[in-house]
This record gives sequence, structure tokens and C-alpha cells, in this order.
Amino acid sequence: MLPQTLVPYIGLAAAFVTTFCWLPQALRIIRTRDTRAISLPAYAAFSCGIALWLVYGISLGDLPLILSNTVSLCLQLTIVGLKVRYG
Amino acid sequence: MLPQTLVPYIGLAAAFVTTFCWLPQALRIIRTRDTRAISLPAYAAFSCGIALWLVYGISLGDLPLILSNTVSLCLQLTIVGLKVRYG
Repeated sequence: MLPQTLVPYIGLAAAFVTTFCWLPQALRIIRTRDTRAISLPAYAAFSCGIALWLVYGISLGDLPLILSNTVSLCLQLTIVGLKVRYG
Repeated sequence: MLPQTLVPYIGLAAAFVTTFCWLPQALRIIRTRDTRAISLPAYAAFSCGIALWLVYGISLGDLPLILSNTVSLCLQLTIVGLKVRYG
């Protein structure tokens, strides 16, 4: 098993990666204006789920949850907006 | 603010939605074989992030984290595999 002192850093790395990984998807759509393969139900539902995580984080006063889900929600709403615009 | 008894259900709903929302994206790709607008770096990084969340969940012995991230990882690896296959 992992040393216990490492565990919080694994969680931080997980939060960082799953937050900022959507930047290349958003940039690809901005560059190509191609959203045909993007599923609107998937991204709309993911945005709702992220909003629920944000409400959860605010309810717990958990700063990492609040920060990472605020950034994620901005990126997801950008992708949803681009999908709605480009079809 | 929300009643404190509701808070765990918000977290469960968030985990459920952010896990299963990727099903319509995977199904869309299986149906259309179109992955052109999908960013491989985004989905590959998201899969790595989900794997980190899974390691974090296992380290904490947290069953909700383990279950939701196992399902998520399966869905994400399906999408990554389809992207690699269809280009």
C-alpha cells in the first residue's frame, strides 16, 4: 500500500488532472469549430453533476472541492456553449 | 443553506451523475463511429485523473469513491479506445 503521508497528494493530483484535462477539449473546439462528435446530453449532464459537487463542497465548506469544481464548471459550460453554437 | 441531512444525498447524486453522464458520449461514438471532435489528450488525461481518484479511494477505503471511479474509468477507457480506433 501507499505511505499514508502520500495519500492527500494523490487526491490533490487527481483533482488537478480531472479539472484541467478539459482545457484541451475546449481549445480543440475553439480552434476547429467542430463539435459533431460531442454528445450534448453527456456534457450537459456532466455540468449538472459538477454543479452538484460544487453545492456539496459549499455545504461542507471544503475549499478543494469548491475551487476545482468552480474551474471545472467554467470549462464545461464553455464546451456546452460551443456545442450549442456550432451544433 | 441546505439542511445538513440532505448533504450526503447531494454528494451521492453528484457522484452518480458525473459517473453515468459519459454513457451517452460512449453510445454516440459507437453509433456514429465519429470521434473527430473528441480531444484524445483531454480524455487520456481524464482517464489518468480518474485512475488517481481510484487509487485515492482505495487508499482511504472509501467505497463510494472506489465504485464510482471504477465505473467512470471503464467508460473513459471505452471512449479513449474508440478514439484511437476511429481517429
